[in-house]
Amino acid sequence: MTLTSPGPTLGVVGGGQLGRMLAEAAAPLGVEVVVSDPTPDAPAAPVARDQVVGDFDDPETVRELAERADFLTFEIELADPDLLEEVAAETDTPVHPDPETLRIIEDKLVQKRRLAEAGVPVPDFREVNAADELRDALEDLGYPAMLKARKGGYDGRGNVPVESPDEVEEAFAEIVDAAQGGSPEDPGGVAMVEEMVDFERELAVMGCLGSAVNEDRTHERATFPVTETVHREEILRETVSPARADDSVRERARNVALDVLDVMEGRGVFGIELFQGPDGEILLNEIAPRPHNSGHWTIEGCHTSQFEQHVRAVTGRPLGDTGRRAPTVSANVLGDVEERGAATLSGEDAVFERSRAHLHWYGKKEVYRLRKMGHVTLVGTSDERVEPLLADVRELRDGLTFRG
Amino acid sequence: MTLTSPGPTLGVVGGGQLGRMLAEAAAPLGVEVVVSDPTPDAPAAPVARDQVVGDFDDPETVRELAERADFLTFEIELADPDLLEEVAAETDTPVHPDPETLRIIEDKLVQKRRLAEAGVPVPDFREVNAADELRDALEDLGYPAMLKARKGGYDGRGNVPVESPDEVEEAFAEIVDAAQGGSPEDPGGVAMVEEMVDFERELAVMGCLGSAVNEDRTHERATFPVTETVHREEILRETVSPARADDSVRERARNVALDVLDVMEGRGVFGIELFQGPDGEILLNEIAPRPHNSGHWTIEGCHTSQFEQHVRAVTGRPLGDTGRRAPTVSANVLGDVEERGAATLSGEDAVFERSRAHLHWYGKKEVYRLRKMGHVTLVGTSDERVEPLLADVRELRDGLTFRG
Repeated sequence: MTLTSPGPTLGVVGGGQLGRMLAEAAAPLGVEVVVSDPTPDAPAAPVARDQVVGDFDDPETVRELAERADFLTFEIELADPDLLEEVAAETDTPVHPDPETLRIIEDKLVQKRRLAEAGVPVPDFREVNAADELRDALEDLGYPAMLKARKGGYDGRGNVPVESPDEVEEAFAEIVDAAQGGSPEDPGGVAMVEEMVDFERELAVMGCLGSAVNEDRTHERATFPVTETVHREEILRETVSPARADDSVRERARNVALDVLDVMEGRGVFGIELFQGPDGEILLNEIAPRPHNSGHWTIEGCHTSQFEQHVRAVTGRPLGDTGRRAPTVSANVLGDVEERGAATLSGEDAVFERSRAHLHWYGKKEVYRLRKMGHVTLVGTSDERVEPLLADVRELRDGLTFRG
Repeated sequence: MTLTSPGPTLGVVGGGQLGRMLAEAAAPLGVEVVVSDPTPDAPAAPVARDQVVGDFDDPETVRELAERADFLTFEIELADPDLLEEVAAETDTPVHPDPETLRIIEDKLVQKRRLAEAGVPVPDFREVNAADELRDALEDLGYPAMLKARKGGYDGRGNVPVESPDEVEEAFAEIVDAAQGGSPEDPGGVAMVEEMVDFERELAVMGCLGSAVNEDRTHERATFPVTETVHREEILRETVSPARADDSVRERARNVALDVLDVMEGRGVFGIELFQGPDGEILLNEIAPRPHNSGHWTIEGCHTSQFEQHVRAVTGRPLGDTGRRAPTVSANVLGDVEERGAATLSGEDAVFERSRAHLHWYGKKEVYRLRKMGHVTLVGTSDERVEPLLADVRELRDGLTFRG
């Protein structure tokens, strides 16, 4: 390849914090970023070359984005795979990962079936299209279990735990309400139910498919070091790398991630969320076909960040070194207010004062409860244990507030 | 302080590669950057919030920049200190470093005199305002010596070596030509001549003045690890950190840098270029009141980069940890063409393929001979010797060409 000015333009459907961090990573490589997002002056806008304002699935918006771009990608699953495919063909702009992958992933039932078929270990699950079916399924799977909208859920939205038979009716009504494409009268194809895994801990692997093809005709693949993730209210709170798991568990997690990558098509970074069961077995939880919150620590923690890796992959450059520089933890800065309002964060001087702590501010104008507003990464020395690092990053994060 | 969206805006006079890398570093901190530059779509423009198009010393341009900014700074010495002071007062926008510092630094004779008065070791020098005065001065200083335009020189422009008495007339005519503000008829105040230091190696220290004031009423100061710099045709080619010098030499270099910082006023990062003499003594070469090419390696090589440090200092945030992550070298990618033309770099895939190598592309549309177009940084392991790293980064850089 060659480099010119202006360099290749990467069109990104979605201009939130992932688009913003993609743009930050693209600049040194000479790649310009244009994002599309329905919110004017979205978080990525001040850093990107430009923003096209429009819905993620609006044909005119995506067409304009494609016309301005040399490569297309997306940072949000709400992107429409049919539209991406159509526009890519029309404008001769490659889109990565392959929209077919988005199609598989956006429907959690299809995703689980495809992965199970490919031999990836997944929790036991059932399709459920009525409250009665849910009740029947739970006789098999047992209580508690997790009822999931097939499409449209993220950060815990669209997931409803069912603790006992008494909760079946209400849980199903709630999931129909949350799901895309269903109605109480005709809820067909909206939900699945999954056994609740009694996990030891949650792990995540950021995997990547590159542009090179190996001699055995398999894709160039790379994985970042296995990360431990800590959730509360089904929202990621902290990440820890290296994960506090045995080497054998980490190796198993990495192998499951590689198996998942084999099911994916096209190029780019994938967030692969896993459960570590009580006996060290690994089960797949969910996949995101894009950079993911569980990999934000790689910006400072690895030789190549997940964002640079995604830019490299999508634009057809060789993948970078995914090695870890040092033990690294991160903590999300979430909205701690009761009412939606203008965002003003205080307490951040303590983060700036702390050696090797890095604040990432997403530039969102409004804050509401549990909204992801930024994150703090804390890098250790090469032989440092992660427990004190995790305690420290939590303390730094807990010192930040939007409540004035 | 608090963080909001949009966050504080940093106005930067100059939108070249330094402005671009400042904007890249500012984004995660929630600081927005607006630059001013006479070239439309300057290198910093795609990454910054916006660019005001106009000359560095155009009052309307600088006023517009100040009106849009919460803090003002500059990435080029061609900024006009009087104008900056006037506009800062008019718009109540703090400007850092203090324009007085720019006034001292922009005139190399004033710079040397002030530093010598403050006890900073400098090479022997004389003011020369006529060819005769140059001849007299060289009887004292000896040949060869370096004749320097007092203002406006950079990257070797405005520096003329004088090897023998035969060259005096021609050298003086040349420097009058290169200097700002003089003419052959009235060259008053245009030049100085300096003994040619028979240096062992060149070193540089990026120093920083912060916003905090210590108990003894001195400014918060920080220095990055001492860097070895390699020049050819008076243009920086490579940097090596740690510098290949004794601990005692590095310590002396750091102390001279701290003395230099004491002469500076306001906040921000300073590039302090030094000579290491044959007996390990340190002499000041030149100062740049801004991030400097000799500190580009800090982006990957240190816990805080010189660019983030400058943003922190100017916007009044605490300074970051200047510690080195690992031995790190960098090499400039310079124009290797004979004729000015559109820039197309080839050979960069080898850089992307190399583990821990990082390409920084400045986004300049045109290339000409020796123009700084980008740089390559190569990070080693924690105990790696720098010689093989330096050889490797040179090889990577030598594989890059604009000649197609």
